[in-house]
Amino acid sequence: MSAGLDAHASEVLERELADRGCEALLVVGASGRDPDLAPFVGPVHLGRAFLVMARPGPGRGPLLGYLTPMERGEAAKPGFALLAPAELEVERLARERPEPASFWSALLVKGLELAEIPRGRLALAGHLGAGHAVGFARALEEAGWPLVDGHEVVRRLRQRKRPAELAAIREAARGAAAAMRRVAELLAAAEGARGDLRLAGEPLTVGRLRREVFRVVTDHGLEQPEANIIAPAEEGAAPHSIGTDSRSLRAGESLIVDLFPRGRLFADCTRTFCVGEPPAALAAAHAAVRGALATARAGVRPGVRGFALQEEVCRGFQDLGHPTPISHPGTEIGYVHNLGHGVGHELHEFPSFRKEAGVEGVLGEGDVIALEPGLYDPEQGWAVRLEDLVVLGPEGIAEDLTPLPYDLDPRAW
Amino acid sequence: MSAGLDAHASEVLERELADRGCEALLVVGASGRDPDLAPFVGPVHLGRAFLVMARPGPGRGPLLGYLTPMERGEAAKPGFALLAPAELEVERLARERPEPASFWSALLVKGLELAEIPRGRLALAGHLGAGHAVGFARALEEAGWPLVDGHEVVRRLRQRKRPAELAAIREAARGAAAAMRRVAELLAAAEGARGDLRLAGEPLTVGRLRREVFRVVTDHGLEQPEANIIAPAEEGAAPHSIGTDSRSLRAGESLIVDLFPRGRLFADCTRTFCVGEPPAALAAAHAAVRGALATARAGVRPGVRGFALQEEVCRGFQDLGHPTPISHPGTEIGYVHNLGHGVGHELHEFPSFRKEAGVEGVLGEGDVIALEPGLYDPEQGWAVRLEDLVVLGPEGIAEDLTPLPYDLDPRAW
Repeated sequence: MSAGLDAHASEVLERELADRGCEALLVVGASGRDPDLAPFVGPVHLGRAFLVMARPGPGRGPLLGYLTPMERGEAAKPGFALLAPAELEVERLARERPEPASFWSALLVKGLELAEIPRGRLALAGHLGAGHAVGFARALEEAGWPLVDGHEVVRRLRQRKRPAELAAIREAARGAAAAMRRVAELLAAAEGARGDLRLAGEPLTVGRLRREVFRVVTDHGLEQPEANIIAPAEEGAAPHSIGTDSRSLRAGESLIVDLFPRGRLFADCTRTFCVGEPPAALAAAHAAVRGALATARAGVRPGVRGFALQEEVCRGFQDLGHPTPISHPGTEIGYVHNLGHGVGHELHEFPSFRKEAGVEGVLGEGDVIALEPGLYDPEQGWAVRLEDLVVLGPEGIAEDLTPLPYDLDPRAW
Repeated sequence: MSAGLDAHASEVLERELADRGCEALLVVGASGRDPDLAPFVGPVHLGRAFLVMARPGPGRGPLLGYLTPMERGEAAKPGFALLAPAELEVERLARERPEPASFWSALLVKGLELAEIPRGRLALAGHLGAGHAVGFARALEEAGWPLVDGHEVVRRLRQRKRPAELAAIREAARGAAAAMRRVAELLAAAEGARGDLRLAGEPLTVGRLRREVFRVVTDHGLEQPEANIIAPAEEGAAPHSIGTDSRSLRAGESLIVDLFPRGRLFADCTRTFCVGEPPAALAAAHAAVRGALATARAGVRPGVRGFALQEEVCRGFQDLGHPTPISHPGTEIGYVHNLGHGVGHELHEFPSFRKEAGVEGVLGEGDVIALEPGLYDPEQGWAVRLEDLVVLGPEGIAEDLTPLPYDLDPRAW
């Protein structure tokens, strides 16, 4: 076990590096908030930094390189051995090599030498500018360290969430749930049982709900770097529409509200509403999606493949006569997407529910998973999606991060 | 002039590509909000996308590739010719090549072929994962398109701000100024002329001010992706400290407040406060920094080198007996940094005030520039920095985006 990595992470690192024939994982970032660095360094105030993680072995713990002397205290917090700016000769390099690609080339060669990483292949992750990365990759290859894509190594290392990460996801999930309740409250207060909905004498629009969501999530200290989806009727039925602010909401139509704010980590949840009487097809679809979500929730447990659950949910929808990606590849009507995804430092993480997934397609204890079955009818112009965020324990769902009603009718909330 | 680029941008693109011996600029992004894509595509809701800009010539306008059929409407907004998902065969590639580096390799080769870019060197910008970029760089080189770092090409293309960009910076600057006024208001209301400051019976802390800044900037629809600096006395004197939330503020000490929130683009402004009687050295430093800022403001105009202004400001500080980076390279006392930087899609943009800068070191009409002289004394534990954000017109400052008092005393605000 390496200093700073727990036994599970050491094992994953060892396996993933061996699979790729790599000597080490190299993670570079413009700040400690880089989603490939943050899982390792935690919530510290670091600017440009890099992490070198050799194949685990005695005396070979991770090394954290930082570039600004004043960040010494922050850099020390994660508990890794440090490569300080003076050792890395940051000041001289910055003076002699003003171009970023050239600066990073020399800096990383110096860091790898100080870390005593044997010449050989390295797995690269992190998010510097693509042009800088291409520049320093050439220099590292010349120095004896050819680079291969190492993002999957990091994604596998961060699949199982640790307590501090779970706490951060819980915080984001609380804000998302509060915002969803506020949307339900406004919808329940809306007037206009047959036509356009009105609230306090004004037409109730997508934009009005979106402003309220913004207020609630920011009150919870969260941001929405990927925005949100508040999509009525035909807009909800188009999978990539986020909804148009000026669109007035109407009674009897579907409204998909999909919120995925981020604090330190992301949360993700979806509910579907209908003010007034839902058309029969919408009501039936809602019942079918609730059933699919119940199936998925009952099926998640360590060792199960995500795609096996997708197949089970597809069978259920097909039995009810709905096309699915398995019965009708590429369908835009019926169930048109995948069942779920991991959630964490990025909105879409491992485990994967894709058919093609390897080891990352197997659910594991400590995974945080969004389950989101849905049904869509762009011709009739309605859509239903329900999404719960859950934490996986040894036997199945250990914790439900979406303690919200499923009802279409906001007055039932 | 290419479709979608104005005459000035076409000229810059032509020059920068010729300088590097490149056939085209290739910009890749995980979303349209990538700071290298956003200057070209504007505020559209795009996921993964890439832009190919060949050396300007008849019939050779920029091409925008997008990956999700539903984003057609958004992709069309910037007015570029499109490479649609069907032409790029995105669906087949995603199925056959689940690994991102391999997927992007095939996608970009396809895109460059469709765009009829002659084989030869390309300048690369944008921010995909570094590992993915290294992976597709190898494939593109094999296909006849070796890549070089193209970030500077984009940074030069976005140096001169267009009206929509200026509007977005103005919006962010309004929020920053409102937050600064609110800080002044709280400080003016604080009690405790000699010791720790108190507000409504509670100790007034850095954290209290930071929460209030958060509230005001979010009310303005802004985020703070790079946080902010609220740094009293010894913390302000350490250039990279952002200030500790639990730190109680005291009368007679300096307090640096540096705010740089972002809406669509960034703004940046700094003021320094002192509640109660400032020590003589602090008052004198404040007067010197005001003088330096006035010198800088009087000196900015198109054609002037940023570093020439830095030299002028250094001479002024040296005449008053303060060390500067020119008189004492690496000094941590006195004036310890550079005079300014451009502000826009990223917090630090061109023009550059560095000695080593090339053409990007020359100020130009339409630049948005932060000017931020300061004086620091880590031994005595005080610091002063004043920062104004200005828009450059043909004769000098055309617009002042920081309409705030300079006073140390918040009660004078």
